[in-house]
Amino acid sequence: MAKLYHVPLSPFCRKVRLSLAEKKIDCELVEERYWEKDADFLRRNPAGKVPVLRVDGMVMAESVAICEYLEECYPEPSLMPKTPEARYEVRRLIGWFDDKFHSEVTSKLLYERVNKKVMKLGFPDSTNVKAGAKAIKYHLDYMAWLLDHRRWLAGDAMTLADFAAAAHLSSLDYISDVDWHRQESVKDWYAKIKSRPAFRSILADQIPGFPPPAHYADLDF
Amino acid sequence: MAKLYHVPLSPFCRKVRLSLAEKKIDCELVEERYWEKDADFLRRNPAGKVPVLRVDGMVMAESVAICEYLEECYPEPSLMPKTPEARYEVRRLIGWFDDKFHSEVTSKLLYERVNKKVMKLGFPDSTNVKAGAKAIKYHLDYMAWLLDHRRWLAGDAMTLADFAAAAHLSSLDYISDVDWHRQESVKDWYAKIKSRPAFRSILADQIPGFPPPAHYADLDF
Repeated sequence: MAKLYHVPLSPFCRKVRLSLAEKKIDCELVEERYWEKDADFLRRNPAGKVPVLRVDGMVMAESVAICEYLEECYPEPSLMPKTPEARYEVRRLIGWFDDKFHSEVTSKLLYERVNKKVMKLGFPDSTNVKAGAKAIKYHLDYMAWLLDHRRWLAGDAMTLADFAAAAHLSSLDYISDVDWHRQESVKDWYAKIKSRPAFRSILADQIPGFPPPAHYADLDF
Repeated sequence: MAKLYHVPLSPFCRKVRLSLAEKKIDCELVEERYWEKDADFLRRNPAGKVPVLRVDGMVMAESVAICEYLEECYPEPSLMPKTPEARYEVRRLIGWFDDKFHSEVTSKLLYERVNKKVMKLGFPDSTNVKAGAKAIKYHLDYMAWLLDHRRWLAGDAMTLADFAAAAHLSSLDYISDVDWHRQESVKDWYAKIKSRPAFRSILADQIPGFPPPAHYADLDF
């Protein structure tokens, strides 16, 4: 069976968990306190971060590389469209969320509020929290603009781009940092993706010291 | 003809330039002062960053997505191996350089020394510069470890992983921040890649106010 070394609220781990679950690849989840730099873990991934996936006799790191590998080796159900143009758009949006959204929003809200406490790095920096709370509005509007003429973020089929976005938003939703009233179309999109069986394990996450709000696991939020 | 909006020392732009040149795709280079947030440029890429490539009637952003697209549509010469396992390793290393190397080294040396001055953001932060100068040693050692049992970084053929690494190192070499004496195998690897025709445009770059050192364009450095 595959084994994923992860942190429950990491959006990069959640993207891989969603891919694995959607493709029905059985996987054991192992929580990894990567910031403690355990020697065994550094052997598995010299980059010292999660996710790390043990599958098919390999030990793999980097969520983008892992998801592309899963797509190539476990193509059904497909999370990538067929044409190079459509595949480009999926990869562009994965970059948008994992790079831009991550640095402007996730790192400023989730990392300030949760990671700093868990890793004993002090208190949240209010300037960062304010900047993150402001930036997420612009990102929700951008998603609504995409969803204005598409059923899913990258086109008419659900893809890895939706999982990348849902991974970030679900982690932020765990700490009540998403205003679902801002854009109805984004809420509808999230309701669709949240109700998939692949999402169940993510909705069941519980982080000690950070109880999730009632709406977090509620499909009718 | 294709058109690339770029910044000469950006490693993400250089990776795309190397791919285009290796595949002999004619491309006009247009310097883009993306930090001035020109409205026309933001229309081309709402993420507001370079590279942006106009090709095949599309306007594309995100260097990883662009390079995968070029690989799919212009497969010769190939910069990706054939098996999913080998392709995974290429993508893992691209992630290593564009994420880890970028945040630990490039952003701490190149951005402090050059970007801050060009963008009028003040003086280099000496703590960052020191951290970057320390971290690059560890990365050169990691590359030497890879090259110990491989001809190229990801295996026995040159791939996008080599271009990702060479893009970062060449930008740092422009400001004399690479100690080529540290690891002979890394120097040999760079000499091989530097002598390719695809590298010529990068070696001809000139940034006003930052003259390159003599060894920068010298193939026998």
